[in-house]
This record gives sequence, structure tokens and C-alpha cells, in this order.
Amino acid sequence: DIVNTNAQFLARELASMGISVLHQSVVGDNAERLEAELRLAMSRSDLIVLTGGLGPTPDDITKEVCCAVTQTPLVRDVNIEEKIRSFFIARGRKMSDNNLKQADVPLGGIVLDNSCGTAPGSVIEKNGCIFALLPGPPREMKPMFENGLKPLLLEKSGGVIFSKEVRTFGLGESNMAQLVSDLLDGSNPTVAPYAKDGEALLRVTAFAKSEKIAEEMCDEVISEIRLRLGSYVYSTEYSSLEETLLHLLKQRGETVALAESCTGGLTAKRMTDTAGSSEVFHCGIVSYSNDIKMKLLGGKGDTIEKYTEISEQCASEMAEGVRELSGADYGLSITGVSGPGGAGEDKPVGLAYIGFSRNGKTVVKKLLTGRSENSRDYNRVAASSAALHMLVEYLESL
Amino acid sequence: DIVNTNAQFLARELASMGISVLHQSVVGDNAERLEAELRLAMSRSDLIVLTGGLGPTPDDITKEVCCAVTQTPLVRDVNIEEKIRSFFIARGRKMSDNNLKQADVPLGGIVLDNSCGTAPGSVIEKNGCIFALLPGPPREMKPMFENGLKPLLLEKSGGVIFSKEVRTFGLGESNMAQLVSDLLDGSNPTVAPYAKDGEALLRVTAFAKSEKIAEEMCDEVISEIRLRLGSYVYSTEYSSLEETLLHLLKQRGETVALAESCTGGLTAKRMTDTAGSSEVFHCGIVSYSNDIKMKLLGGKGDTIEKYTEISEQCASEMAEGVRELSGADYGLSITGVSGPGGAGEDKPVGLAYIGFSRNGKTVVKKLLTGRSENSRDYNRVAASSAALHMLVEYLESL
Repeated sequence: DIVNTNAQFLARELASMGISVLHQSVVGDNAERLEAELRLAMSRSDLIVLTGGLGPTPDDITKEVCCAVTQTPLVRDVNIEEKIRSFFIARGRKMSDNNLKQADVPLGGIVLDNSCGTAPGSVIEKNGCIFALLPGPPREMKPMFENGLKPLLLEKSGGVIFSKEVRTFGLGESNMAQLVSDLLDGSNPTVAPYAKDGEALLRVTAFAKSEKIAEEMCDEVISEIRLRLGSYVYSTEYSSLEETLLHLLKQRGETVALAESCTGGLTAKRMTDTAGSSEVFHCGIVSYSNDIKMKLLGGKGDTIEKYTEISEQCASEMAEGVRELSGADYGLSITGVSGPGGAGEDKPVGLAYIGFSRNGKTVVKKLLTGRSENSRDYNRVAASSAALHMLVEYLESL
Repeated sequence: DIVNTNAQFLARELASMGISVLHQSVVGDNAERLEAELRLAMSRSDLIVLTGGLGPTPDDITKEVCCAVTQTPLVRDVNIEEKIRSFFIARGRKMSDNNLKQADVPLGGIVLDNSCGTAPGSVIEKNGCIFALLPGPPREMKPMFENGLKPLLLEKSGGVIFSKEVRTFGLGESNMAQLVSDLLDGSNPTVAPYAKDGEALLRVTAFAKSEKIAEEMCDEVISEIRLRLGSYVYSTEYSSLEETLLHLLKQRGETVALAESCTGGLTAKRMTDTAGSSEVFHCGIVSYSNDIKMKLLGGKGDTIEKYTEISEQCASEMAEGVRELSGADYGLSITGVSGPGGAGEDKPVGLAYIGFSRNGKTVVKKLLTGRSENSRDYNRVAASSAALHMLVEYLESL
């Protein structure tokens, strides 16, 4: 019932360490099926990473079945027992005997500390096969992988890995991949293309004796990528347009205000997804009705009547209007047709005008996503990204 | 690398049809490993649903391997061939011979039409085991399942299934489950609890000879659920608070305006996620800076100074202010601390004040999510849901 984001996280992390993930399997809390799955996994893999089933209830059976399969006895760890008892005392809650199940650890195995919950993880080795048991909730699993399992696996492999991402905008995944196609064949560093919501990125990963060397190996390839992709690259440091923008504005001590229509608050949401955005994000106006466009943004009265609200003129006045109203350094505006309805003559779904105002100067860009049917979400993300990118591009050009 | 949302979709759909999903497996485009996986699947399951690998490139091998394993010859389907040729002609693109691979269908199998792409799906039966081959992209896979595979499976089982969801707010999954615990044991209809982002819902699914009978069976259980959960239930028809609110406002021909701070545009985004929201959503003000709170929302000058911006008074003035400014029927406001920073004395992360204004009357609710560390996203969703629910509750009480 739940989307398995753990699988994606682990596949990416392991791949970046040079570990090929050949199989992913999901079974319910059923001892017989889990045992069969583990025996099969042992027969074909060197490393088996399990998530989930480490909790205190009777249907949490991962550790028990795993120990049975590897013939590893479970022993009570007094430190963990103490930790669990304290956990309940601190919360004034009653502990049931079941909870102490979590204090049983595989004899001769390695215990992985859980910094975000009560279930410890563990690592068992048997006949050259490593079993790593991690908790199911992503907020417990990810830190345990990062701080517990990953260093352990790297130690075994005698090296470290280092990754950097090169983020592009406006290029598309296949065009990007074509421009660096020969680099995609490299094995160390590896270069892998990804695409999401109209953005395309390359992940560069190197494996070396030290992080410093691995980073240098990445940087060398990134220089070559930058040379090929030019100004399509907007960041090699931040993980999104909004984070990049936040950083650029913070550096300059400047602020931005938004006036958005068809994106309905999405751009403001993205700008404020990251903590600390209040330093640079002044305000957003979601001017869904024409009335509010006129009232707040100081439209020249007949702009909407003359050109409609989906027009270069309206975008321009919105960007200028919100900048003046807020007193922010920059004003960004978006007006367009997200679909499915709302299209008119010469105004297809997917059309948007993006306005950018600074210091009384205003520029408007026309965007056509080319996606019409059932692409409301995509069109909204694309228009909002185009607006964020317009300011990023300007700030990077300074 | 990609989150496997297909697996979740198929698991839910199949479960709702009374088909138990016991195994999920993922393998790459490797003939040997795929064959081993299929042989294993055949040995333990009656139905094997495969997604992906139906494209025109050499690494698309699902159909070929599946036919080899089931000893089913592939034959060229002239109608599909014609369709593919037309597809390329219509787009003025050159077709490569590879593309015609998609016109090869399993002899004696059933072809599933692809309404959103060029790769048809297929169904092969061998030794009492059904193989269903669906395309990988969710936007092609889902309609093919819905319109092609699902009716076929229902026909085999001689009935139809019908599902309805009961959505609650403010109750929590475990409390909800406890109140209906006996109903969760039923087998037809089944009642299953789900939780997401602080909301909890029950999915009621019945299997019967006709949809009418199945729906009646669901409705009977839903009456009982409503009785037990009372006003915690906000909808049995719509799939979210925002959709429910949209519908309620549309019914009454009324409009709403938003003033949000800590949620940074998220509430406006949710209100406008659904097409047609422009009828009822007037505008949103993302008043991130205090300056804009004062300027736009007509705060009484010293409110923020006296009570700070995280206060009942400020929420009240924001709700009233945005209603008056916009001329909408209702004003909703949110001001709080999303975290991780921004907490002060008596103002922990997770605190929010939700304001609701109509006709000059204003009510403010205090929300404490109780989640502080690293819960920015959760706190923002919770505060925005509380605001939406406040208006839903009012409209439903009329």
C-alpha cells in the first residue's frame, strides 16, 4: 500500500558505491515466504539489505527469520534493554514485554544504532554473504544507512565514494545526454543522467582511497561537463532551482516577491520549502481572480480588458506591481493556462507568460510547454520553474 | 533509480479485487535474470503482472522473454503495424525497423490496447498461470490496467468490485481503527485503514455480481462507520480536503481567500491543484514578511508589536483582512512556526494559529502538531489541512 521509496534510496546509494543492485523483492510479514526469499537471495547475492519488520509487535519477524536462516542465535543486549526502558520512562508510557524483543541482537553480529527510533539495526555475516537489517520508516532507515551501514561497506571495500550533481535547466534529458554521451560510458567517475519535472541533471560519482581524491576526480569531469553544457548548468551545489535561488539572494542580501496566477501558490510553496527562506522571500500574491490582479498589482485599468489576463502586458504589470507593493528587490510573475480548461484562441493549455522586474526594468518570457491534455500538474511545475530560473539566470550573470 | 509507484498502484488495485499480492520483484533488462524471475513466479503464483520493457529498443525484452518461458510464438499483427506506421507519419518522424517490434504479439494471447502510447500490452495463459504484460510509464500502464486488464480479471472471477473511501480529519489512524476494529475483520466488504499527512481514511471494498449490489454493500457498512466516527468524517465522495472544500463552495456559489504565512503558499497550491478552482478561489496572500502582513491585511498597527506575528490576534486580523481586501465570502489565515528555526518562548515549532472569517465574525483555532525536529514539511501540511478543514466543517454544518 505504501510507495517503496526505501528501494529507490538504497538502489541509488548502493549504485553510487559501485555495488550493483540486481534484485529487489518485497514480501509481507510471513515467515515462510520471507525465509524462502532469504534463501533465494543468499544463493545469488553477496549483500542482502532488508528494511522493515524490526518493530516490537508479533508480526515483526525480519530479525528472527534472518537469524534462523543464518543459524545465528539471538542474545539480549543489556545496553539496548536499558535504553528502551529509559525511552518509556522518559515518556511516562508503560512498556510491554514485547518491546524488549528489540533488545535481542544476533550473536557475533554488528549492532547499528538507531538515532531516530527504538529499533536497532544489525549486520550478520554468514558464508561470505552479508545481511544488513534496517528499520522500515525512511526517517529511521536513511540515517542508519548513512551513518551505520555505508561506512561499514566502504571500509570493507577499502575506499570512499563522492558524488556531485550538475543541474541544468531548459535543455531536456536526451539533449543533455547527447552532449555528454561519451562521458556516460566512464566507470570511475561514473556520469548518469536523470530527469524530473522538466529539469535534467547529471550525477557524477567517483570512488577513491580518500574523499579528497574522489572529489578531485569528480571536479575534473564536471569542468568538462560545464564546458559542453554552458549556461544550461545552473548549479553543481544545490539540489533545486529554489535552493539555488535562495542561496544567490542570501549572498547578495536581496529579496524577491511573487505574483502568480496559473501556478496558484506553487512557486511560493517551493520558495518556502527550505528553512531560512524568510530572509529572502518577501511575499507572494496568488492572484487567481482578475479583480485582485487589478486591485493589488496596480494594473493600468484596461490591460486585462485589452490584452486579457494571459498576456505579456499583464505579466509585466504583475511583476512590476508586486515588486512595488512589497518593496522587494525583484518581482516575478506568472500568468498562463494550466489546463485542462481555460484555453482560448491563440492561448493553448501550457502557455504561460513569465515576468521579471527589477529597478523599474521589466522583461517577459513566453513559455509553451507543448503539453496540453491532462498535464495541469506538469504545466504548473514548468511555469513555476521557468520563473525561478529567470531570476537565477539573472543573478548568476551579475 | 525511479520510485516504483506502479507497484503500489497494482497492489492496491489487485487487493481491492480480492487478489492477494504475495510477491513483488524487480529485475533489470537482463534476459537471464528475468527468465529466472519468471520461472520462480510461475512456480508460486496464479497471476503475474509485469510492467515495463515493452518499448522498441533492444533492451526492451519483457515480451520476448515471457514468450520464451511460456513457449508462445510471437506473430506480427498487421493492425498494430498499421497503427504504428500512422503514428510516425502523423508526427512527420522517421520510423526505424525496431519500432515494428511492438507489432509482434503472442500467438493465442489477448492484446491490450494502449490509448496513451505505441506499446500494446498482452495477456498470455500457460498451464493455469496468467501473465499480464503492461507498459512501464504510469500514464500508459494505469489506463491499460483500468480499461484492459481489470475487466478481464473481473470477468474471470465472475463479479465486479466497488470501492468507496471514508475520509476523516483530526482523529488519527489508530483511534479511527480502534473505533471500527470489528469492521476491519470483515471479508466482503473489506474495510482497510490508511493514513497520510495527518489524515486517516477507511477504504470499503465489496465484491458482488453487479456494481449496484456491491455499492449497496459498501453503503451499508459506511452508514455504520459514519455512526461510529461522527463528525470526524468529512467526506465519502471526494479524495481530499481541498476537493471537498471546492465542491462545497461551488454548491453554494461562494468564494474563499487565503492569507498564509508559515505554510508559504502550500494552501493556495492545494486549493488550485484541482481544475475549476478559479470559480471559488479568489486569491491568496503569502505574507511571509511582517511588513506585508501590515500593509495588505490592515492589521491594527500594533498587533504584531504587542502579540507578535504568531498570535491569535494576528491570525484573526489576517483572516478578516484578506476577506475584506478580496471581497470573498470567507477568509482563512495561517500563521505559525514550521521550523526548524523560528521558535520562541511559548512558541514551539509546530504551533500555528488558524483564523476563519465570515461576515465580520472571526474564529481562531490553536494547533500544536507536537512534532518539532525536522518536521517542517509535516507542520506545513498539518497547518494547511487544519485551515481547509475549518471551512469544510463550517460549510457542512450549514
